[in-house]
Amino acid sequence: MEMDLNAQVKKACFLQRLKDFPSKLKDGVTKRIKHVQKFGKDDPRRIIHSIKVGLSLTLVSMLYYVRPLYNSFGVSGMWAILTVVVVSEFTVGGTLSKGLNRAFATLIAGALGVGAVHLARLCGHKGEPIVLGILVFSLGSAVTFSRFFPRIKQRYDYGALIFILTFSMVAVSGYRTDEILVIAYQRLSTILIGGTICILVSIFVFPVWAGEDLHKLVANNIIKLANSLEGFEGEYFPSSEKTSKETNSSVREYKSILTSESTEDTLTNLARWEPGHGRFRLRHPWTKYFKIAGLVRQCAIHFEVLNGCVLSDAKAPPDFISKIQEPCSIMSREAGEALKDIAKSIKTMSRYHVCVNTHIKNSKNAIENLRLALKLSFPETDKDLLEIIPGVTMASTLIYIVNYVEKISEAVEELSVLAHFKETLDPKLSPELGQHHLLHKGTVKPVLEGDNEEECNNSPHVVIANHNEQPPTVNENNVNLGAEKTTVVVV
Amino acid sequence: MEMDLNAQVKKACFLQRLKDFPSKLKDGVTKRIKHVQKFGKDDPRRIIHSIKVGLSLTLVSMLYYVRPLYNSFGVSGMWAILTVVVVSEFTVGGTLSKGLNRAFATLIAGALGVGAVHLARLCGHKGEPIVLGILVFSLGSAVTFSRFFPRIKQRYDYGALIFILTFSMVAVSGYRTDEILVIAYQRLSTILIGGTICILVSIFVFPVWAGEDLHKLVANNIIKLANSLEGFEGEYFPSSEKTSKETNSSVREYKSILTSESTEDTLTNLARWEPGHGRFRLRHPWTKYFKIAGLVRQCAIHFEVLNGCVLSDAKAPPDFISKIQEPCSIMSREAGEALKDIAKSIKTMSRYHVCVNTHIKNSKNAIENLRLALKLSFPETDKDLLEIIPGVTMASTLIYIVNYVEKISEAVEELSVLAHFKETLDPKLSPELGQHHLLHKGTVKPVLEGDNEEECNNSPHVVIANHNEQPPTVNENNVNLGAEKTTVVVV
Repeated sequence: MEMDLNAQVKKACFLQRLKDFPSKLKDGVTKRIKHVQKFGKDDPRRIIHSIKVGLSLTLVSMLYYVRPLYNSFGVSGMWAILTVVVVSEFTVGGTLSKGLNRAFATLIAGALGVGAVHLARLCGHKGEPIVLGILVFSLGSAVTFSRFFPRIKQRYDYGALIFILTFSMVAVSGYRTDEILVIAYQRLSTILIGGTICILVSIFVFPVWAGEDLHKLVANNIIKLANSLEGFEGEYFPSSEKTSKETNSSVREYKSILTSESTEDTLTNLARWEPGHGRFRLRHPWTKYFKIAGLVRQCAIHFEVLNGCVLSDAKAPPDFISKIQEPCSIMSREAGEALKDIAKSIKTMSRYHVCVNTHIKNSKNAIENLRLALKLSFPETDKDLLEIIPGVTMASTLIYIVNYVEKISEAVEELSVLAHFKETLDPKLSPELGQHHLLHKGTVKPVLEGDNEEECNNSPHVVIANHNEQPPTVNENNVNLGAEKTTVVVV
Repeated sequence: MEMDLNAQVKKACFLQRLKDFPSKLKDGVTKRIKHVQKFGKDDPRRIIHSIKVGLSLTLVSMLYYVRPLYNSFGVSGMWAILTVVVVSEFTVGGTLSKGLNRAFATLIAGALGVGAVHLARLCGHKGEPIVLGILVFSLGSAVTFSRFFPRIKQRYDYGALIFILTFSMVAVSGYRTDEILVIAYQRLSTILIGGTICILVSIFVFPVWAGEDLHKLVANNIIKLANSLEGFEGEYFPSSEKTSKETNSSVREYKSILTSESTEDTLTNLARWEPGHGRFRLRHPWTKYFKIAGLVRQCAIHFEVLNGCVLSDAKAPPDFISKIQEPCSIMSREAGEALKDIAKSIKTMSRYHVCVNTHIKNSKNAIENLRLALKLSFPETDKDLLEIIPGVTMASTLIYIVNYVEKISEAVEELSVLAHFKETLDPKLSPELGQHHLLHKGTVKPVLEGDNEEECNNSPHVVIANHNEQPPTVNENNVNLGAEKTTVVVV
């Protein structure tokens, strides 16, 4: 009886599971589909690229489908298919690099291969495979070795691979067929057809330019630094307006910069293969971007230390922190604004050096204020040196960061000259900036005059008249500290 | 007359140049050859790999040279050549990964391609190319899209590429030939022959294991950290025994670690394809190495800050530095020794945790001493806080580094359990360590008792009896500073 009950329960369970199966399967499939959809939406260019590859494949299939084409190329048409699959890269630079490498390597190796076969035939039927074997072995080894050299690896690795491939194939086939010239010709022409289709589709159907990606990546990395600085201020000084929660995500934005070197390296190499496009001319200084990206990464390394200060349990005593908060806040804010302007300058390819320099000057003045604050707060604190170490570490890291922001600004300035960025400020105004000295009781809030206001005041804190988010806080200790060196104009 | 003279001078110049040409050419060629030789000598495995590729090519050429083989495979033999050229990678893991990806992708795509051709034939002669076109387009696009997913990209990227290639080729050829099964079979069998030759040559002729490379890379990176710490001590405190010149090269050794992430990532991925070899079993915990390498890089980031302290012009006043020199030197030395023991532990696959923990304990005690030194030196200095900032930054960075060394040690400890490292110390001895408290007037110099001495005293400073390079310096200020926490044994 019990057995019977058990069996019934099992059966019921099984039926239930069978009943649930379609809905579970549906849930699982829906989840997967949503994941794939989200992945495609994150960067729709991925979907476009996939369709482009499908398109190129369909085009190249015509070599088989269309009778006259098939008659002239025959089964060699498969080399065109192979070329399309292998050469289709995400970026125009990638496709061009692979396509040109493949075409030239096939041409040279094919010619050498035909030569090798003719040479081998001079040695009689018995000597032929020996000579061919020696040639294939030695050329194959030599070119494989050349692929280890960084210069060749960086730009011609694929070409070297195709060279070995074509040479071996032509030389070895030559032993069995007399139509070697026909084979070499068909292989070369179909590869040219496949490569041309790929390159044309890549350039003219929604092109993805490695150069533009590099340009945007560098600008975005700089913005990430700026956001992290902003987030840092809110997190380290929770008393300031931004709450910790709001900024929590942005303070760690710099992390991705630490690992983006290989992407930048690849994009720089590919961008150099690309013709002029959009705002970029043929010989755009792409290597300069790599240099800037390196500086940005150096700066991000110091953010790692800053992040350690934020996360550390050992913080300096609140009274000490409150004393250095003012200059540190200004330093991070102004450096952040400078970074934002630098990024804007890259993105719009216009020169904002006056704005940037003003922000950098402000943050450098804040360094002086910080030094004074440290000097002044020194006799007041009865805490020992030990306790303030974390605060001092934070402050000195900020100083490093400000110095790096200046270096980045200089590198972008160099880039702007080489890449002919357009001027945005009336040059007559620039000499005036930096000459006005105006003292103001309270925090020094720099706002530029006239036309420049529109260019520079994209941050709430530099505008006093229109916004009230950050009323100038009067800090008796800090008044006039930056007087000697402050070179900004206050409205 | 003058014209005549001129012509004569020109002629003489030309003759001279013609005379010099052979020697210049010889010089240039010799220089190039020397460069190539040096490049080969730097890592002779490069030369061996090149010869291995040549060997595989020669072996696979037999498909053409030997009549019975040529009779059974015909021109399909070129797929074997193609496979050899493309699959031959430097490491066993790379060759296996590419070979297996290629074999399975060809198998699956070939079967699907044959199925697609049969399906298309059901739609009549006019419908056939349309159905085939739609199938090639949609599968080509879908698989290209799948290659963007990080999981697939990391392990099956090449397989996806070969899948598109084979499917398109079989499906499109199917339109023109009825011998599609023969084509598919020949392609598969020749690819298997080529792949097998590559894999056998890769494994049995001077194999290069990605796993072993990863193992060595991680150990060497840890040694680089240790050397940099050692170099730092000599450079920051020039009064110590090592002169600045000697250590100049080693202090920047950590730099290469900052950019080695992509190499580690690649090696980890490839190592997972490799069978058990030498000291490594099949499921060796390769991902743990990647984790350790990440910690080492995090630590190297702090070295960047430390390097900034060394290079900076703004140094703390000498009297302040002299006060923190003792504990800072001990910290960096002991942390360096701990790192060396950790690296030794990885290299020999033996557990040195007692030695490592002793060194870490010593450096942590030195941190306490540093804190006390800072506390004590505080009222004595009449310099202001500002001037000692660089010194404090240096000291706090050293504290960070010591903490990272502890984290690295813990991660290696985890690895040693997972990978069954062999024990090297008598387990009875280890509980004794850390219990003996012994106070000693002067700097605390830790030396382990008995058997342990042999294991741990690879640094001159921990041995007092045998070496005289560093006699214990008596520092009145520092006496007994570490008394409460020092838990090392002094002979």
